[in-house]
Amino acid sequence: MNKKGLLIVVSGFSGVGKGTAVKKLVSEYGYSLSVSATTRAPRPGEVDGVDYHFKTVEEFEKLIDYNGFIEWAQYVENYYGTPKQFVEDELEKGNNVILEIEVQGAMHIKEQYPDAVLIFITAPNAVTLKDRLFGRGTEDAKVIGKRLKRAYEETDDMMHYDYLVVNDDLDKCVQDLHAVITAESFKSDRNSEHINIMKSELTDIRKEFIS
Amino acid sequence: MNKKGLLIVVSGFSGVGKGTAVKKLVSEYGYSLSVSATTRAPRPGEVDGVDYHFKTVEEFEKLIDYNGFIEWAQYVENYYGTPKQFVEDELEKGNNVILEIEVQGAMHIKEQYPDAVLIFITAPNAVTLKDRLFGRGTEDAKVIGKRLKRAYEETDDMMHYDYLVVNDDLDKCVQDLHAVITAESFKSDRNSEHINIMKSELTDIRKEFIS
Repeated sequence: MNKKGLLIVVSGFSGVGKGTAVKKLVSEYGYSLSVSATTRAPRPGEVDGVDYHFKTVEEFEKLIDYNGFIEWAQYVENYYGTPKQFVEDELEKGNNVILEIEVQGAMHIKEQYPDAVLIFITAPNAVTLKDRLFGRGTEDAKVIGKRLKRAYEETDDMMHYDYLVVNDDLDKCVQDLHAVITAESFKSDRNSEHINIMKSELTDIRKEFIS
Repeated sequence: MNKKGLLIVVSGFSGVGKGTAVKKLVSEYGYSLSVSATTRAPRPGEVDGVDYHFKTVEEFEKLIDYNGFIEWAQYVENYYGTPKQFVEDELEKGNNVILEIEVQGAMHIKEQYPDAVLIFITAPNAVTLKDRLFGRGTEDAKVIGKRLKRAYEETDDMMHYDYLVVNDDLDKCVQDLHAVITAESFKSDRNSEHINIMKSELTDIRKEFIS
């Protein structure tokens, strides 16, 4: 019914598998994925325009000056940002846009787009989350300790999200994300135009019966 | 994650096919259906406890006195009401309860159960709605005129519902209703307990890394 697309912001605990879930969601249901811009160097296998839009510092700062980002931030020595043009074009075309971003960025987006739908991907429980972090097998206990600290801090932000979706089984998680987006498109405040059209059409049709 | 069931209130335009959609939804997904009580006589084929709980006027009025209804109303000469015990028992057991009811009753329920989810089933457009009313082939133009008048009046109530779901194709309508219920169960304000548990578990797990 509603014509404009939805802006869907997805965050989640470090190690919860949100990247995989978002990729599958986008490929299965044809949503538009927003690709972030960054000044950090591409890692082996990363493709420009797919994993990130890789920019020089000069290019990135020029885009900041031209108001080209919905939100941007600097971590360590690198810039990260969400290009505005792509998101607005897609929404205007009626496409639903998925944006995977950390908590701070998600809050900035909600300020500018109050209609945005914020989803936090969580684990069934903390032990599962810890096991997944260990499961990567690449980090030592100190690094995992840091990640658990961050996860602990992120629990404070979960209430600011509209929905909490558990990633226990990947397929179910992807279906659940799709159910949330589907349901949001039916919200009555997103469909006031349908109500107006029904009202106007029923006014006309009733005339046939009154005259 | 959340333990308590959801109370789902479904209304819709006269002739839109909401009864069929609700029956299919309940049988396919195993939701609990609330059956109304009434003092009107059973029509041929109607089964007590399935279509309605058929009551005498005395029985019904006693239930009113004992606060046995979530809401009740009198139409023409008959009472209609939603028995409270069934709904509360099912919600307590963690089952989602579906309640099909007209607009006025839905508003009363929202007052008492602010967490209730209100869904209005609409038609793709007014011509389709009119055609369906004619399609029944049982009513004359005057009766259909009355129904269209009522549909026109109901457009004023649509904004009070949380969701508008179109019944164009029955299977899609049922899937969409299920998506709304699924999504609602993920709302973060319905899952504050999960957040508290995660926080507490992460506190404990972090101790292993700090000590």
